[in-house]
Parts: sequence; structure tokens; C-alpha cells
Amino acid sequence: MLKLEHLGIAVKDLINANECYTKLLGAEPYKQEEVASEGVMTSFFRAGESKIELLEATNEQSAIAKFIEKRGEGLHHMAFEVEDIYQEMARLREQGFQILNDQPKKGADNKLVCFIHPKSAGGVLVELCQEIKASDTE
Amino acid sequence: MLKLEHLGIAVKDLINANECYTKLLGAEPYKQEEVASEGVMTSFFRAGESKIELLEATNEQSAIAKFIEKRGEGLHHMAFEVEDIYQEMARLREQGFQILNDQPKKGADNKLVCFIHPKSAGGVLVELCQEIKASDTE
Repeated sequence: MLKLEHLGIAVKDLINANECYTKLLGAEPYKQEEVASEGVMTSFFRAGESKIELLEATNEQSAIAKFIEKRGEGLHHMAFEVEDIYQEMARLREQGFQILNDQPKKGADNKLVCFIHPKSAGGVLVELCQEIKASDTE
Repeated sequence: MLKLEHLGIAVKDLINANECYTKLLGAEPYKQEEVASEGVMTSFFRAGESKIELLEATNEQSAIAKFIEKRGEGLHHMAFEVEDIYQEMARLREQGFQILNDQPKKGADNKLVCFIHPKSAGGVLVELCQEIKASDTE
């Protein structure tokens, strides 16, 4: 694992949450991005070499909508940056972790991502992510 | 805020959780530390410039015991490092955040810490922490 890449926070209302986190962190979000495949609108704040990702559901089937219905707003997942997501997925599968994706998928922020089931990781939804390099899409 | 200093994870059994996170992160915890005043035993893993802090309750009155009883194991708090915790507490109080401590207190890992109520920060328990410098204790 290279670093804690970001921390995902489920919020009900992105406009309110952006305002709250702008006050908390003393800086505005540096971008907003919709991930239609996940049914979320996101906004990103910098926090040193890591990021805070706020996630608002854009439909009721979104995992974020279900999370908020069950647990309320709050910390949703933590994401680690890896050098080679295919290699890390193979390593973790071999160690007994349950990975929720057969193959990495395209996430927010120009990343290939996959998720590890919270039951495998002490109740925490863990994301692995790897920057998509120009050479990957050539 | 200087950076995301650490992420706190509430666990039932530190020995099992250490084993799980050692596999996940590919490295052992670099230290364990009891914080008797909080009723917790902690262990720390490095993740780039941030840390993962696992927390096991050492008594039933511990906030970690109550958290696990209510919500189960999982992400518990996020902590931001600040240059001057007194100045940040004053700034955030002025912005309307509810800070749970009148004064910073001694936390794990040689830090002065305070907590912001989750109701102030979109359902997330936020910690501020500042390294205790040698000059602070002279």
C-alpha cells in the first residue's frame, strides 16, 4: 500500500456538507465529480497527501443512499493507493480477503478501484485504487 | 489543517485485528500504546504520511465499547494534525462547531488532542491533534 489515498464520507446534502467541510478544513473542495455508475455525486478536499471525498446519493439504489438509511451520515470507506491493483487483488484474495469486484472498475478521480467486503476487514469497507496512467488507455 | 494524521478504527479484539490489518497493509503495527484515561489499547500502522489506529476498549465505560455495542466494529473517527490546537479550537468554535473538550488533553502518540461532536461535522467524529514539542513540557 502506498498511502491512505482518501476517506469517503456519506452525506445527505452535498451543498451543506461542502459548506461544513470548507469551514472545518479551512479550504474549499478542489473538484466535484459525478460517478453515474455508482449513483453518487462527489466532492473532494485536500488533506495533506490524502483527500476527503464527500458522497451524496443521486438515486435511491445507490450504496450511499442505503448506507445513510441504515446508519446515518458518516464515515463510509477508506481507500489505499496501490502501485498495481491487479497484483494487490491477487495478493489479498490469496490472504483470504473477500473482494467485491472480479475486475477493477473505473471510479472517481481517474482511478481504477475495487472494494473489499467489510466482513473481511474488521467492519470497514476498504477500497483499493490505482491511478490510471496514460499508457493504460492507449 | 496540516494533514489527515490518522484514522481510528474500533475493534473488538486487537490481536485478531492486528493480524487482519498486517495482511491488508502488508506491514506489522509499529507500536502499541494504552491510553488508560480513554479506556483503550491502541495499535498503529503506517499508511504513507497517515496512520491507521486500531482501538480496543479496556473497560465497558470506554467510548469504544459503547460505539461497538451500538454500531459494531468499524471506522470510528478521523484526526487532522494542526500546527496550533488552541488556535484551531478557537477558530472552529467561532465557526459554530461544538468542541467536546474545553482544553486539549493528552492523547496517544505524544499528541495534544480534542474532539468535535459528530453533529457538527456531518456525522463524523473529528479529532484535532498537535504534536507535543519538547518545549511544551519544559
